[in-house]
Amino acid sequence: MLASLLTCANLHNKADFNMPLRVAFQGVHGANSELAIRQHFGDTAEAIPYPLLGDVFQAIQSNLVDSALVPVENAMAGAVSQAYELLMESDLLIQAEVILHVHHALLAPEGVVMADIKQARSHPQALAQCEEFLRRHKIEAIPAYDTAGSARDLAASPTPGVAAIASSLAAKLYGLNTLMSDIEDVQYNLTRFLLLGHDTPQAGDYNKTSLVFATRHRPAALYECLGEFASRGLNLTKIESRPRRNKPWEPLFYLDFEGHWQDPNCQAALAQLLLRASFVKLLGSYPAVRNNSVGI
Amino acid sequence: MLASLLTCANLHNKADFNMPLRVAFQGVHGANSELAIRQHFGDTAEAIPYPLLGDVFQAIQSNLVDSALVPVENAMAGAVSQAYELLMESDLLIQAEVILHVHHALLAPEGVVMADIKQARSHPQALAQCEEFLRRHKIEAIPAYDTAGSARDLAASPTPGVAAIASSLAAKLYGLNTLMSDIEDVQYNLTRFLLLGHDTPQAGDYNKTSLVFATRHRPAALYECLGEFASRGLNLTKIESRPRRNKPWEPLFYLDFEGHWQDPNCQAALAQLLLRASFVKLLGSYPAVRNNSVGI
Repeated sequence: MLASLLTCANLHNKADFNMPLRVAFQGVHGANSELAIRQHFGDTAEAIPYPLLGDVFQAIQSNLVDSALVPVENAMAGAVSQAYELLMESDLLIQAEVILHVHHALLAPEGVVMADIKQARSHPQALAQCEEFLRRHKIEAIPAYDTAGSARDLAASPTPGVAAIASSLAAKLYGLNTLMSDIEDVQYNLTRFLLLGHDTPQAGDYNKTSLVFATRHRPAALYECLGEFASRGLNLTKIESRPRRNKPWEPLFYLDFEGHWQDPNCQAALAQLLLRASFVKLLGSYPAVRNNSVGI
Repeated sequence: MLASLLTCANLHNKADFNMPLRVAFQGVHGANSELAIRQHFGDTAEAIPYPLLGDVFQAIQSNLVDSALVPVENAMAGAVSQAYELLMESDLLIQAEVILHVHHALLAPEGVVMADIKQARSHPQALAQCEEFLRRHKIEAIPAYDTAGSARDLAASPTPGVAAIASSLAAKLYGLNTLMSDIEDVQYNLTRFLLLGHDTPQAGDYNKTSLVFATRHRPAALYECLGEFASRGLNLTKIESRPRRNKPWEPLFYLDFEGHWQDPNCQAALAQLLLRASFVKLLGSYPAVRNNSVGI
């Protein structure tokens, strides 16, 4: 307890002295999560890489970092569902929503030209997002563990005819050339991230609230719970049922809606939800990106 | 068209002569998807590996295989959301639900003993599922592209102190020893797969129906759509909103419910949903696993 109080004091001092915030992410330098951290914080934060998402959560829970940015939708790392499970088991609060427009580039070592490339290594999701581009250029897709990691590995041991698909930031960090940029097939390649921390964040102009709940076992239980939001004009922006860890027959619901827990109609909906649900866990109310979604 | 008719005829002949069905999966031999194929088909099917999930869909759409098994929940490969996107864009029908109880084993080359192991390589999701085991034995988790692939790679180039976490099938296929089995931390480590094909499957004793729909843009649109199921006592077993590919502000809803499109109350609900939704795509009604979930 004392240690934790001291760490908090330490964090406050850090802010006073304008020290950069330490923000954890899963992956290696040059990952899209690092780009999202740069987009949100500019140069006021230092992005700290961890190999596994579990390590990211452990780092923030033991105050090794100030906050963490984790992908929760359309993410490259395939760690999306795990992020929700870890969030469910933690006492962290969502601080903000960050939407990154993800671009992919074809990277190769110095001296290699487009016509040389026979294979491209990257995360399967990135390969899938560049499928038409690869087919057009007769490049074979080789799945690898992650995007930035395949750039790092290619730079460390260049292989003739092989390129990596990763961010332009990865090209810069690992000294590769960008043979072609914006090679993704779809125009709106957005990844949604959540910034996690210990604080209760200030409300913004436009806010979302995220929560997890389980229903009581009765017919139409979910429908009735959602009625508490619909009847108060609170727009949902996300809903997902997931089997509960170690109790797969008891689903959990992850819900995002437009509004802040301080708003009276949100408070009324939350109170009614508490009556209907077998439990509710508030993941936070936080400033969100308006044009990311429509009400559902 | 003629080619496609010929291929169909060919498939029928295959069944007549008791040739094994060819079932595609994403990954390498020894993957959990292959175990799920064996669980469902016994030795009447041949499991055919493809590196990417897009390749799996392409294989079945061009009739190189008879069906495909893809993970859709709690999956190892992180390809879950992509499976739904590919399903949305295809004209395949779900043939069956398969639930695999996933077990992990610690594998190492001949002669290596437990005390030697300092690092374990596997897919991040598998590493996360064995987190407590790894901590207890002071083994460092090293993320790799997939579970069976890390077993294959370790067998090909054994590294002192390094083990792989994969299935016992992978141990057998790649000639590794199982140092310890069932090392997962959670008791009910279930992965849900869908078998995809071209046929309209026979109804089973217990069936689920899966569909995708978009709502018309009006307040509480989702709530009203769900009311068509709730009011007819049709239990939902899964709901998920996902940003639409290339139109992230128009979410799609993936819904599973208990029942078959041939049931009159299902038909009534589907007809009302068609009136309320901006579109509905039926992914199929299929025999499902009963104790996998409760109604929501």
